[in-house]
Amino acid sequence: MSIPELADVHPAWLPPGAFRAVGARRVLVLGDGLLTGTVRAEVGHACARHGGSLEQDAAGSPDLVLALSSAAPPAVTSAGPSVGPSVGPSVARALAAAREVLAGQGGSAIGEEGYLLARRDGVTVVLAGDPAGLLYGLFHVVRLGEEAFAGERPAEPHRPAARRRMLDHWDNVDVHPVMGQVERGYSGGSIFWRDGGPRGDLARVRAYARLLAATGVNAITVNNVNVHATEAHLLTDRLGDVAAIADEVRPYGIRVHLSVTFASPMRLGGLPTADPLDERVREWWARTTEHVYAAIPDFGGYVVKADSEGQPGPFAYGRSHADGANVLADALAPFGGVVHWRAFVYNHRQDWRDRSTDRARAAHDHFAPLDGRFRDNAILQVKHGPMDFQTREPVSPVIAAMPSTRLAVELQVTQEYTGQQRHVCYLAPMWKEVLGFRPWGPGEDGDAAGDAAGDRAGRSVADVAVGASGGGGGLVAVSNVGDDFYWTGHPLAQANLYAFGRLAWDPRLEPDALLDEWIDLTFAPAQGGDPGPLRRTLHAMMDGSWRTYERYTAPLGVGFMVRPGHHYGPDVDGYEYTPWGTYHFADRDGVGVDRTRASGTGFTGQYPQPWSDVYESPGTCPDELLLFFHHVPYGHVLHDGTTVIQHIYDTHFAGVEEVAGSRRLWERAEPGDAALHARVTELLGEQLRCAEEWRDQVNAYFFRKSGVPDARGRRIP
Amino acid sequence: MSIPELADVHPAWLPPGAFRAVGARRVLVLGDGLLTGTVRAEVGHACARHGGSLEQDAAGSPDLVLALSSAAPPAVTSAGPSVGPSVGPSVARALAAAREVLAGQGGSAIGEEGYLLARRDGVTVVLAGDPAGLLYGLFHVVRLGEEAFAGERPAEPHRPAARRRMLDHWDNVDVHPVMGQVERGYSGGSIFWRDGGPRGDLARVRAYARLLAATGVNAITVNNVNVHATEAHLLTDRLGDVAAIADEVRPYGIRVHLSVTFASPMRLGGLPTADPLDERVREWWARTTEHVYAAIPDFGGYVVKADSEGQPGPFAYGRSHADGANVLADALAPFGGVVHWRAFVYNHRQDWRDRSTDRARAAHDHFAPLDGRFRDNAILQVKHGPMDFQTREPVSPVIAAMPSTRLAVELQVTQEYTGQQRHVCYLAPMWKEVLGFRPWGPGEDGDAAGDAAGDRAGRSVADVAVGASGGGGGLVAVSNVGDDFYWTGHPLAQANLYAFGRLAWDPRLEPDALLDEWIDLTFAPAQGGDPGPLRRTLHAMMDGSWRTYERYTAPLGVGFMVRPGHHYGPDVDGYEYTPWGTYHFADRDGVGVDRTRASGTGFTGQYPQPWSDVYESPGTCPDELLLFFHHVPYGHVLHDGTTVIQHIYDTHFAGVEEVAGSRRLWERAEPGDAALHARVTELLGEQLRCAEEWRDQVNAYFFRKSGVPDARGRRIP
Repeated sequence: MSIPELADVHPAWLPPGAFRAVGARRVLVLGDGLLTGTVRAEVGHACARHGGSLEQDAAGSPDLVLALSSAAPPAVTSAGPSVGPSVGPSVARALAAAREVLAGQGGSAIGEEGYLLARRDGVTVVLAGDPAGLLYGLFHVVRLGEEAFAGERPAEPHRPAARRRMLDHWDNVDVHPVMGQVERGYSGGSIFWRDGGPRGDLARVRAYARLLAATGVNAITVNNVNVHATEAHLLTDRLGDVAAIADEVRPYGIRVHLSVTFASPMRLGGLPTADPLDERVREWWARTTEHVYAAIPDFGGYVVKADSEGQPGPFAYGRSHADGANVLADALAPFGGVVHWRAFVYNHRQDWRDRSTDRARAAHDHFAPLDGRFRDNAILQVKHGPMDFQTREPVSPVIAAMPSTRLAVELQVTQEYTGQQRHVCYLAPMWKEVLGFRPWGPGEDGDAAGDAAGDRAGRSVADVAVGASGGGGGLVAVSNVGDDFYWTGHPLAQANLYAFGRLAWDPRLEPDALLDEWIDLTFAPAQGGDPGPLRRTLHAMMDGSWRTYERYTAPLGVGFMVRPGHHYGPDVDGYEYTPWGTYHFADRDGVGVDRTRASGTGFTGQYPQPWSDVYESPGTCPDELLLFFHHVPYGHVLHDGTTVIQHIYDTHFAGVEEVAGSRRLWERAEPGDAALHARVTELLGEQLRCAEEWRDQVNAYFFRKSGVPDARGRRIP
Repeated sequence: MSIPELADVHPAWLPPGAFRAVGARRVLVLGDGLLTGTVRAEVGHACARHGGSLEQDAAGSPDLVLALSSAAPPAVTSAGPSVGPSVGPSVARALAAAREVLAGQGGSAIGEEGYLLARRDGVTVVLAGDPAGLLYGLFHVVRLGEEAFAGERPAEPHRPAARRRMLDHWDNVDVHPVMGQVERGYSGGSIFWRDGGPRGDLARVRAYARLLAATGVNAITVNNVNVHATEAHLLTDRLGDVAAIADEVRPYGIRVHLSVTFASPMRLGGLPTADPLDERVREWWARTTEHVYAAIPDFGGYVVKADSEGQPGPFAYGRSHADGANVLADALAPFGGVVHWRAFVYNHRQDWRDRSTDRARAAHDHFAPLDGRFRDNAILQVKHGPMDFQTREPVSPVIAAMPSTRLAVELQVTQEYTGQQRHVCYLAPMWKEVLGFRPWGPGEDGDAAGDAAGDRAGRSVADVAVGASGGGGGLVAVSNVGDDFYWTGHPLAQANLYAFGRLAWDPRLEPDALLDEWIDLTFAPAQGGDPGPLRRTLHAMMDGSWRTYERYTAPLGVGFMVRPGHHYGPDVDGYEYTPWGTYHFADRDGVGVDRTRASGTGFTGQYPQPWSDVYESPGTCPDELLLFFHHVPYGHVLHDGTTVIQHIYDTHFAGVEEVAGSRRLWERAEPGDAALHARVTELLGEQLRCAEEWRDQVNAYFFRKSGVPDARGRRIP
């Protein structure tokens, strides 16, 4: 197998230099299997470049041993040649120590995709239960760099928190007349599809899989959840195109999933119905799925957006979404596949005049009553917030409402509402807040509201997604990748893709540490190994960039205020009188959506305690969500003593200043890549222009409405 | 020549039955030439259907004689056969009488395209100076129907007010990714182009020419003023496609014009510049134009949108628009061609924060200083209002500012901002107001402001467009025609196309009389000749439909408030914070644009007296233009005693009621065409839905801003 290092695309976090520490060593790889072969190929490739050696069957004293626990222990070198791999005594000791630790972990497997990392007597050891674990262990060593080969390292087990770590591609095969090749894509075309068919650029697909494997992602969906006419056929007569992608990503431990339309039995099968309780429909799905697995034995499963924004679904037959999901789950079960069933169901033809309907309620209203009715291999995929990937939303109440359902939490790496990869917006801090949110309150405070709630107190969103023994739905995100040279349009948006994969592997990781990892891998090789000054610049620019973005856009959690359709740039009233259910209700007196039980839509009642009460009162509701939950006068005083209107002015001026500051910092930055520096410089110019536009439109809008002047006398146009 | 009566397209105002009166007669056509041949073919076709006879060379007693004045007088029938046409004594007397009147009109020609119509001794006579006049005379007789053959009719001269009566097609050859096949087209595809090339459906082009000839239009532009890559080549290597269209429309007296890009010498000619003062550029235009006339000897000329909305122009070379227009005019002059140079030049990248820049001023600022510097065959084509075809605008001040320039007034038949052919909006009343507007005040009141102004007092916009002896720029309009079955999408929008042609012929015609003509031609044949009840219904629906549309859309002349991009449906703030220069500046206290000299942009100063002063004061400014010229508080009292805010509420409720009334009337209407009835019914449903949306969004917007409740307590959402 050859390693996909492409000349015409940016290496992202796997530049050749990132492998210097590994590649300069003597490395032994023990074990069999496809992914072990990948490990061997990676090591061989690195060693060829950096002067090390892949020890295969010769005697030697390797610095690094990557071994499957099932592999026969190597013989210790004595005098003569040996038939299998043979090692020196220090390697044997290191391996044996690792095995001992493994035995202490229950005596058996370290778990799927897991590995032990240890260093003893000058030998670094990765011991894995399966080849995937070996591959993840290798990338762990790559991340550590020279540190992996220094001192002693007690054996440390690593395993992914969740079994499922998936990126959804909203890629169309045909160029959609409105949405283009990639829906909500800001990085050029698709890496899979072009103009109605496969791109055929499989080297790039392989390189993408490699990048993902280095973060921990192990599944991708290769087409848009909005399944149009051509894309529907990927399930049947165009299945070969999917299989070709599966072949490319398999060596990096990635399974392929497919978005399918619920109407497939009609559109593809010629049946008169797609009723999930119709026997012909069940049979069609079973037979079709059998064919899929014949072509792709490790196929991951289906992703379905049903009864949502025009996509067909079970409502047409008076069936529930559990009925809908289960027919697909049953078809997949014999093969170990899963169906990801999206909970993004709401009325997108709402009457804006009707203040009683609340889109935020929709997913909970539809799905909470179905808890316990989904098959075990049906995963309910829930957007992290109740609306749609806004810069600031509360956590979706669905996440706390379905203890007997396997839930996946869906994030959006592509920056649809967060700057569309023209703005720097490092999203890991937002995801971290979401994943760390405790829907039943903090555990240490206890909770007397009920036994069940008491059991759950202290559990986080991440705990729900991870599930028992990692068997939850896991984390899913919409990819930000396209055929752009930098993969992600904005070079710094690579950090979001990287951070998502790593958080999906381990939600306890910290955003600033992940940013360091990304900086080190991406920039250190060109910086002589020490990206110190650049590291400081990037942290200054990125650590707080999500909050900066929040400051200059829609205030206090109210959301939207973007240009309809493309969602870039400000339009305060853009969605105010539309059917999309996304309103702020600003008038001359105040702004915000009353979602209380007392006087509003009752949405706060969908949360368990303590949040149900916390959100109910403007006095306890966190300021950053105030306008999401409450309609308040412009003079309402926030917890910091500022009025809402003055907060709007202050944050919008501040947000722009922060962007201007980032631009000044970047001007002096030296990333060791002139083209990348120029691209980021250009994008920062656009970000500043757009931030000023946001500031001025939002401030002017609220000044015109409220008539309240800025207390600091700044210019509001 | 065969008459283009197509089975697969609606006959509009030329159904076969419209020719019944002519076709049932004995008709003699005297004269030669292509268009005389058309007259002969039309008559022959009608007679074949309705039982009359085209008398050609046999003796007879025709009921109708259509004769060129240059044709030899026919011999009077005696006993034996004669060589030329021969007629009975009554025909001879009628013809002689007409010739006498003609002699009294100066003894010579009646003027290009003109004719005399008379009836004496039972013979109806059309006597024309040229074949085009004969054709227009025939259509006059068709309009009159049986009335043309009743009683006596003293000889009456008819001639077009203006020489130039043109429809511009904003049709693209290639489907534009945003604007489609027809920019601002609401009637399907283009009748000329499809998917990058000619449609090849020349029968439809011929039928279109016939419809236009029946109204008096004598020129068409066959491509969009925004000239894209493919369309640029119509001037050179794709000229054959234009010539093919010219061949089809020629028999109906219509000349073809072409929209060209100012950058043609670079894009097509490979020159390094398009500088109008560069000798190579002059030569290129001269040579290219010579080739055009070699292919199309009666080619009309060029239409140019320069330095406007991204189109190239002379500003790039520091040249004036007179320099730009004149280089094309010089190239066209040897062949009698003209260049229509559009005055629609403004900054479309305006900063919305800057209240001192005023798009309304732009055309006057750019062009008024150039008066007298345009060649005689350069026609400055001025939109009727200073902005862009809004439902209500004042007349453009450019029209009064360039006495030494040939001006054409541009109207928009396609309903970009007036309902996009989904709403009934009969535009003739608006055009009539525009054409009847007297920029220098009413003549009878006199005007002492200055000699020049005194001379012009009493002159109307129509007078300016018509010019001395009809030699002005004439009237131009953007066509509403596409490949839709009804030509115009909404069947009732045919009336706008019809009325434009007739007003271009004679701006003194009245909208209600034109509507009668259109109803009679279109519907009478299917109504047994008497469309009485349908006539009443259509007048009730259409006479006031423009004002109804105005009532439920943007109030008091402020304009826009439409959804950006496609311009359909309401979005009060849609253009408020954009670069397009189209603002209403609504805040919690008031609304409108201050364009006064005293405190605003000074736009009122671009008008001569009395309007300069009339518009300057809210007290004298007509209410319907109040917010175009003034920013006033919501409590400002209009001339009828209503406040601005209450006026907004009242008109929006009233407008919707009027649409609902129209729909009720139409439900009971019997147009004798079930498919047409169904189409209009469906469209009225959409119009009512959209009108309600306008009402509710505008009312809600201003209620939220002003806080003033409706005095009549109606529901504002």
